[in-house]
Amino acid sequence: QLQCRLGMRKLGPVYVHNPHLDALKEDILYHFSLGTETHSLQDMFGDVKFVCVGGSPWRMKAFTEYIAAELGMEDPKSEYPNICAGTDRYAMYKVGPVLSVSHGMGIPSIAIMLHELIKLLYHAKCTDVTIIRIGTSGGVGLEPGTVVVTKQSVDPTFQPRFEQVILGKTVVRNTDLDQSLAEDLLQCSKELNQFKTVVGNTMCTLDFYEGQARLDGAFCSYTEEDKQDYLNKAQEAGVCNIEMESSVFAAMCKLSGLRAAVVCVTLLDRLKGDQLRSSHEVLHSYQQRPQILVGYYIKKQLNAKAKDS
Amino acid sequence: QLQCRLGMRKLGPVYVHNPHLDALKEDILYHFSLGTETHSLQDMFGDVKFVCVGGSPWRMKAFTEYIAAELGMEDPKSEYPNICAGTDRYAMYKVGPVLSVSHGMGIPSIAIMLHELIKLLYHAKCTDVTIIRIGTSGGVGLEPGTVVVTKQSVDPTFQPRFEQVILGKTVVRNTDLDQSLAEDLLQCSKELNQFKTVVGNTMCTLDFYEGQARLDGAFCSYTEEDKQDYLNKAQEAGVCNIEMESSVFAAMCKLSGLRAAVVCVTLLDRLKGDQLRSSHEVLHSYQQRPQILVGYYIKKQLNAKAKDS
Repeated sequence: QLQCRLGMRKLGPVYVHNPHLDALKEDILYHFSLGTETHSLQDMFGDVKFVCVGGSPWRMKAFTEYIAAELGMEDPKSEYPNICAGTDRYAMYKVGPVLSVSHGMGIPSIAIMLHELIKLLYHAKCTDVTIIRIGTSGGVGLEPGTVVVTKQSVDPTFQPRFEQVILGKTVVRNTDLDQSLAEDLLQCSKELNQFKTVVGNTMCTLDFYEGQARLDGAFCSYTEEDKQDYLNKAQEAGVCNIEMESSVFAAMCKLSGLRAAVVCVTLLDRLKGDQLRSSHEVLHSYQQRPQILVGYYIKKQLNAKAKDS
Repeated sequence: QLQCRLGMRKLGPVYVHNPHLDALKEDILYHFSLGTETHSLQDMFGDVKFVCVGGSPWRMKAFTEYIAAELGMEDPKSEYPNICAGTDRYAMYKVGPVLSVSHGMGIPSIAIMLHELIKLLYHAKCTDVTIIRIGTSGGVGLEPGTVVVTKQSVDPTFQPRFEQVILGKTVVRNTDLDQSLAEDLLQCSKELNQFKTVVGNTMCTLDFYEGQARLDGAFCSYTEEDKQDYLNKAQEAGVCNIEMESSVFAAMCKLSGLRAAVVCVTLLDRLKGDQLRSSHEVLHSYQQRPQILVGYYIKKQLNAKAKDS
């Protein structure tokens, strides 16, 4: 009944697709500074139901403090240790069933993190896990501060695909995200009624400057008109915002059976400019919006589950 | 005479290639939390002659402490403030003419940093700048701990090229590095006589697991034999090591007139395995080797310059 009411489907376990893994005596999650022989991953992470990921380690720590307060699970000493303290590649925090992990910037950086996160959830025997990327982005024709929940992640030619190179050959992967989760998040935004949220396509690029048609990088070989033409075409293809991680995130989560969403705030309208000229305070308040929305969603889910059981 | 003796060519200024930049009233280097109106970039950075970049912020801070000691420029209080303290995207340190900057993992992450670094050096009116990436990598047929100075950065099909997507279209860029700088670094390693250094090709990939033929990611659709075949072909193409940043680094530095080198230590031999099983101490000592080599090179250059003037 809960699944029906909340539009949830039963998810089951987190999958790896790698016959070689079971032959490993020990699996070292190098970029987390964790491993199956050195850490009891099932004890540490077996109860995880929600994973929130974002580029900045500071933001992911702030999210953990925020969600702890929202769920009434604050540490009285306000101590939220970084589980990956043995490395500076990623930061990881946990409060109750919510794991918060930073992923750096760009597809390769988030892909390394996701490989190791998926293996971590698999080794920990986690089930029914929802994963949400909370990030920042450039908007296309939207008021700065608008939150975009991604419908499809598209490439720079506006196709919903991710190209993974394996042994020198390109394999195309699907970038579908969970549509019912996107709708649930939109509904949460309506209930919150604090800022505008839309569902739309997100363009994912390998570069922030030339790759996103910016005029303010170290190199720029195109005119302002070329830029506007390109962004107009993106808008016609349903692109609401541009960021640098959603395609591989969608592809990898789909392959591993994770219910996934991408929730990014737009920091500026790229049809009107390239540089982030808003004050630090305004940008900071925008960056809190995905956290507020996802925090509300998680709280609602946990309350519904508690009522049901 | 100095240029002749050290195999140096006169470099001149750092170039941007962007006619739009001069029209900007203010240039905000967003991911550094620096800007032309808020910071006097020429005063802060005008004397920079060497830039060292690496993935990990901790390692770049350690490099600054190391180079300060080597050059006899130690801060008596051992304080090396992070110039980018206003953000957690990158960390930046400076001691004398040596700037040290972290770049995270992967092509997109280092590309954002390099766009802003090149603009920073341009605004600061720096001249004759040498830039060296000091990093870690997987070796191909080399004893772990070997240092590789990159001759050419090649893609996963072993071609010396970097594909940049601009306005949805692919532009191919050259990945040549400075051959005389590579030879100077090899000579420095001979003089140091502490560890083995080779000059060879470096393969640059967008992914650490499937993209580098690892058998231990969350997904793996190929056999151990497929992996060995691929790595053997890489070795036949002159690939000595594999990492994730050299191609865009080579391409962007060439475009901006920076004398550039890539110096990476190999942490394991990929022909023999995938996981990093060496002890923390051993891995740490390997990671110091590029720092020691580049520190020696910088000290030698500055001593030669002092003698000449």
